[in-house]
Amino acid sequence: MPKRGAKPKAKPKAEQPRLRTVGKNVDRAEGVDKLTGQARYIDDLVFPDMLHGATLRSTVPRGRILEVTRDPAFDWSGFTVVDHRDIAEGGGRNVVAMIVDDQPLLAENEVRHQAEPILLIAHADRARLAEGLKHVTIRYQPSEAVLDFERAETVLKEIGIARGDLDAGFANAEIIVEGIYRTGAQEQLYLECNGMIAVPDADGERSGMTVYGSMQCPYYVQRALEGLLGLPRERVRVVQTTTGGGFGGKEEYPSVIAGHAALLARKAKKPVKLVYDRHEDLLATTKRHPSIIRHRTGLLRDGTIVASEIDLKLDGGAYVTLSPVVLSRACIHATGPYRCPNVRVRGRVMQTHTPPAGAFRGFGAPQSQFAAEAHMDRIAEALKIDPVELRRKNLLRTGDVTATGQTLKDSVTAEEVLDRALRRHEKALRKQKAPKPGVLRGRGVSLFFHGSGFTGGGEVKLASRAGLELTKKGVRLLVGSTEIGQGTRTMHAQIVAETLAIPYAWVETADPDTRRVPDSGPTVASRTCMVVGGILARAAEKLRAELGDYDSPERFRERARVRLKSGPVKVIEEYRRPTDVVWSDETYQGDAYGAYAWGCNVAEVEIDPVTYQARCTHLTAVIDIGKAIHPILVEGQIEGGSLQGIGWALYEEVVMRDGKMQNAQLTNYIIPTTLDTPRIDVEIVENPYPGGPFGAKGVGECPIDGPAAAVVNAIFAATGRRLDEIPATPERIMKVMAGPEVMERRPAKVSVQ
Amino acid sequence: MPKRGAKPKAKPKAEQPRLRTVGKNVDRAEGVDKLTGQARYIDDLVFPDMLHGATLRSTVPRGRILEVTRDPAFDWSGFTVVDHRDIAEGGGRNVVAMIVDDQPLLAENEVRHQAEPILLIAHADRARLAEGLKHVTIRYQPSEAVLDFERAETVLKEIGIARGDLDAGFANAEIIVEGIYRTGAQEQLYLECNGMIAVPDADGERSGMTVYGSMQCPYYVQRALEGLLGLPRERVRVVQTTTGGGFGGKEEYPSVIAGHAALLARKAKKPVKLVYDRHEDLLATTKRHPSIIRHRTGLLRDGTIVASEIDLKLDGGAYVTLSPVVLSRACIHATGPYRCPNVRVRGRVMQTHTPPAGAFRGFGAPQSQFAAEAHMDRIAEALKIDPVELRRKNLLRTGDVTATGQTLKDSVTAEEVLDRALRRHEKALRKQKAPKPGVLRGRGVSLFFHGSGFTGGGEVKLASRAGLELTKKGVRLLVGSTEIGQGTRTMHAQIVAETLAIPYAWVETADPDTRRVPDSGPTVASRTCMVVGGILARAAEKLRAELGDYDSPERFRERARVRLKSGPVKVIEEYRRPTDVVWSDETYQGDAYGAYAWGCNVAEVEIDPVTYQARCTHLTAVIDIGKAIHPILVEGQIEGGSLQGIGWALYEEVVMRDGKMQNAQLTNYIIPTTLDTPRIDVEIVENPYPGGPFGAKGVGECPIDGPAAAVVNAIFAATGRRLDEIPATPERIMKVMAGPEVMERRPAKVSVQ
Repeated sequence: MPKRGAKPKAKPKAEQPRLRTVGKNVDRAEGVDKLTGQARYIDDLVFPDMLHGATLRSTVPRGRILEVTRDPAFDWSGFTVVDHRDIAEGGGRNVVAMIVDDQPLLAENEVRHQAEPILLIAHADRARLAEGLKHVTIRYQPSEAVLDFERAETVLKEIGIARGDLDAGFANAEIIVEGIYRTGAQEQLYLECNGMIAVPDADGERSGMTVYGSMQCPYYVQRALEGLLGLPRERVRVVQTTTGGGFGGKEEYPSVIAGHAALLARKAKKPVKLVYDRHEDLLATTKRHPSIIRHRTGLLRDGTIVASEIDLKLDGGAYVTLSPVVLSRACIHATGPYRCPNVRVRGRVMQTHTPPAGAFRGFGAPQSQFAAEAHMDRIAEALKIDPVELRRKNLLRTGDVTATGQTLKDSVTAEEVLDRALRRHEKALRKQKAPKPGVLRGRGVSLFFHGSGFTGGGEVKLASRAGLELTKKGVRLLVGSTEIGQGTRTMHAQIVAETLAIPYAWVETADPDTRRVPDSGPTVASRTCMVVGGILARAAEKLRAELGDYDSPERFRERARVRLKSGPVKVIEEYRRPTDVVWSDETYQGDAYGAYAWGCNVAEVEIDPVTYQARCTHLTAVIDIGKAIHPILVEGQIEGGSLQGIGWALYEEVVMRDGKMQNAQLTNYIIPTTLDTPRIDVEIVENPYPGGPFGAKGVGECPIDGPAAAVVNAIFAATGRRLDEIPATPERIMKVMAGPEVMERRPAKVSVQ
Repeated sequence: MPKRGAKPKAKPKAEQPRLRTVGKNVDRAEGVDKLTGQARYIDDLVFPDMLHGATLRSTVPRGRILEVTRDPAFDWSGFTVVDHRDIAEGGGRNVVAMIVDDQPLLAENEVRHQAEPILLIAHADRARLAEGLKHVTIRYQPSEAVLDFERAETVLKEIGIARGDLDAGFANAEIIVEGIYRTGAQEQLYLECNGMIAVPDADGERSGMTVYGSMQCPYYVQRALEGLLGLPRERVRVVQTTTGGGFGGKEEYPSVIAGHAALLARKAKKPVKLVYDRHEDLLATTKRHPSIIRHRTGLLRDGTIVASEIDLKLDGGAYVTLSPVVLSRACIHATGPYRCPNVRVRGRVMQTHTPPAGAFRGFGAPQSQFAAEAHMDRIAEALKIDPVELRRKNLLRTGDVTATGQTLKDSVTAEEVLDRALRRHEKALRKQKAPKPGVLRGRGVSLFFHGSGFTGGGEVKLASRAGLELTKKGVRLLVGSTEIGQGTRTMHAQIVAETLAIPYAWVETADPDTRRVPDSGPTVASRTCMVVGGILARAAEKLRAELGDYDSPERFRERARVRLKSGPVKVIEEYRRPTDVVWSDETYQGDAYGAYAWGCNVAEVEIDPVTYQARCTHLTAVIDIGKAIHPILVEGQIEGGSLQGIGWALYEEVVMRDGKMQNAQLTNYIIPTTLDTPRIDVEIVENPYPGGPFGAKGVGECPIDGPAAAVVNAIFAATGRRLDEIPATPERIMKVMAGPEVMERRPAKVSVQ
């Protein structure tokens, strides 16, 4: 059970002004709506004349579509049927607009993965709709599918990072340790499945389209629909409805569902609801990229890393989606938070005939840091030095230079979080009882970091905008960032209330609706607080300056009312690149991120000697996020991310056969329940980053980067056997504990020079 | 139990062409949607960000509003509050646009009836909304209320009809019979309560409003909103959603709810749902006008009516609403279907401080014909002649002249329905067993008629428009008439399919949406088949002529497809007054209606001697409606109307105290259940009216005009005691059976000259 109310450990600073709202656990802005049931999720909405939509999907991983037949004996009246031809006829392009336009919204002549959408149908009656689905037959000419990404040959994206002289580094090394690490796919498993409702404008089929739905990024959806429908952007309106979790799973996939719903709605001239049930959501939507990562590390005998070569492969699935960006983050974080003068990272996303992988909290960094941290323990074992001391010797400190050549200046606290985590863990488990007889117990550590926001270059391209407008009561935030359960609205309102020196309750937030709010960039990448919150703080400062000096909230209100008499008052600010952040997408060198969050996990794991079930019984998570705008929300993020990391490490396994998920239901895709959840002991560390609002960095992703390695390292400590692949299911644990045949399959080469 | 499948008895005519669709019991157009649950009623719809609205109502029947106080200790955040001032501020007029602009949409300084709307509030959470209602206090200075319409002095509307020389008539009379008859209020009790959702346009508060809801007359609502919101008509869009019954109760009142919802929505800038629960619906919305009707009739000894003086008073309640039109129909039908050379009808609607009465199936005619037919039996008793023979002697025949001076030409069948009903009743009850010991049994007859459509003048003013457009499949009807359960869509589609000689399944109907369909006039007054169906038939004829000769549906489709290539094909026709229908609203003389439906009921009633409960055990209903477009639907209308008449006669009593309905719930406002429903034996008579499509007249209202008198006449036959007031509750029956003290209170004067 997580411990409630962990207080942030801030360094007291004399110059820090007293904060009234930031740092306080104010009421969640959307909390009452959710608690009282008045929050409306997409499936709660019912429009007049609304149809239900469904998707007919491929049942082969690869093949040509020979024929699509609708049973002529079936009564098709009342049905709307859409295939790829309707897109061109409507003046649009059959692509899911993302990074590369390789993915069709509806398959044309060939399918490239199981569950690929081919045909859409809609009907007013859900039962009738299900009947209709059964009366469509698709004949394929199957062809050979590439299903194992480790053997795949087509590279969707390759990234290289190099620094120093790798050969010289290895030449100087006294010992070289190699390892291969594998991670599996993982489902985001938001509580609310994906779903959209498209509502055509009443004035006629070509006039415009509004799409409501569960999503992280309304402006992504708008851009996707614009090209798909062949409509000018301003005639596509996208509105986020209350969203029950995202974790990246509602970053890019909603564009697909929105497109499908919109095509049906345009043809039917009626609203169309397309909501996936859990089975379809598991079967068809994106998951975390499986990975295989090879480490070859050259060290001095005292543990100093002198050369690091990392080869990283991700399974991208059938289409590019966001894989280039996932790969980028995986590569940038591939060394873990350690110094290394000579380093080469080579990352590739391989194409297979499986459903495309996509965004998931951490975005490649959990995979690459799992490998890095499991590898650190392997090195420690090889060198016979304490894993903590190995980390301490190599960890990044202020002034150190990362693999991309970034000199770390502010808020660099790898050592602090390490020390705090160890101390906290010791203290918490001081009176720990011995395990039950036969139960194996071990403790593992992981140290990790996570860049906040897009890479420097990415944020410049986004050119996010956000702002606020005066209301009679205070201000209203105009921001495209979405509340998906993580606390966006609360935290943004706190930042603005603090900056304007007005009560938190005076700040409201406009609904994310492309017709009402500016594009603040996607709600992803641990950027919503640091980057967007920063823009909002700047807008609030500007508004404050515009209103002139006021000494109290009441005076603010008076001034606001006077101003409002002569019309609306709105301030919109745009992202400004900090002048000291320089990044090159060409060389992959420079300041990858303005700031990093730093984290350390200590995991306690017990293994049942009979069932081989590993269980994490205690996890300490110490994370430096600069400043906790709302400590309880931050703690929730850390607990949630940690638990999602534990799930990935121990339970969550996507079983594929013939390119299709076999366990696409919650009866056998297992996530940790409350009973599986260890005590998660959270400590928030606050070393402010001057570039973030009130010193804040990002928090959303960092906590998921560490638990898997800490758990696997604890399993090693408990069993003396190294497990290089997650999830660490009882079967895998049994195999490594059973002995050499598995060790042979996964050799860990240690060569002493 | 009603008998299924009664076949229309049509006179075989050699010249009548063979009909393929009309007269057939085709599938109901909206039946599948309702059966499968995909039909969506207003409370099924949920819009994004939707609030729920509620109405704060007066709790005194009359008074000045001194103060409206919202509890300052209550948290009003999230609430939208509207009062009458918001209407003027928005540029609108605070009136419920109807006949006379006397009714405010929200009370200003005074209230004139219980449950009058004063304040509106809205909140996203229904529970919170209910809390809010409790925290508003209204202080009144009450003043004396007029609650008994028989003693009321203010006349809202007076109508006089006079023909011949009344004094001379009475002078010639050999006997004069007088009687006073009273009827109570009645609730329409549609299955679905009243409700609306107002959705403001997204582009800003002044840009427009769409209102969805349960209603009979979208264009009435549009007109009401136009003035209320101060918007041009084209910016107010009104859409009827699936409507669970109307019976007149959704003719005018929906304008009030739509107005309230729209005011809240405009202020909140969010959709607002305002759906009444049964209690509020019973308490606040309109009911059938209570009546007191005095008859003074001069006769010859053989039963020939020579003079008839009728004085009719209706309780209009606090505002005019549709009372003038209700009064008009009551007066026109006041004599019943009988000849009389010398007649004077004086009708008045009295103003009281009770909730306004309004439209209800029959629209005044059930009241006036109850009195006329109960009076006929009183006359028969006085003259000691058979009630049937008295009727036969006086009933209207072709060539006779009505009280308004209309010479009846087509489809006049009072005698035919009388004969058929008696014969049918005899036959059905030939083997009737004796009642249980002590149970009193009697048989009563009523003869009645009902004008189809608005009065001649009314239809001219309406200038209804309807039409159709070609589709790929056939045609789509464009008609503002609504489906409210009575079968509009089916019947209209049959008329058009028959006229175009295409299959019924090829005809679809556009949803009643003021943006899509023309104004076909309100769905009231038994006009939807005869009048609107006639316009549609004309539009279909025109389309047929435009497409040129085609000899088969397939050829129709070919031609249609060719025509559609050069653009949409639409035909809209307008109402045309038949040249032989002349009416004057000034003199109340002329052809009140183009045609009349004729009906006869024979009721069998049993009375329990212990409980005094009367029960109708068998009802024969023979109705001539010209032509049954869809016999089963017609039969359903006749059964339903008959039963609603029995309910009004025996069970349904609105108990008022201090101007407020005391039994505003279904636990004690009693309607007949299935167990209370007698066998209703229906015979449809088809004497075609040349002015109606395929000879059809109206059917919606006629069946409710007769049952009450037949039941009361049967009670007389059973008990020998005359009951002049309905509902004939056990209490009332006990009183008349108990004897003279009641007879004294309600004297029936019979004077022999």
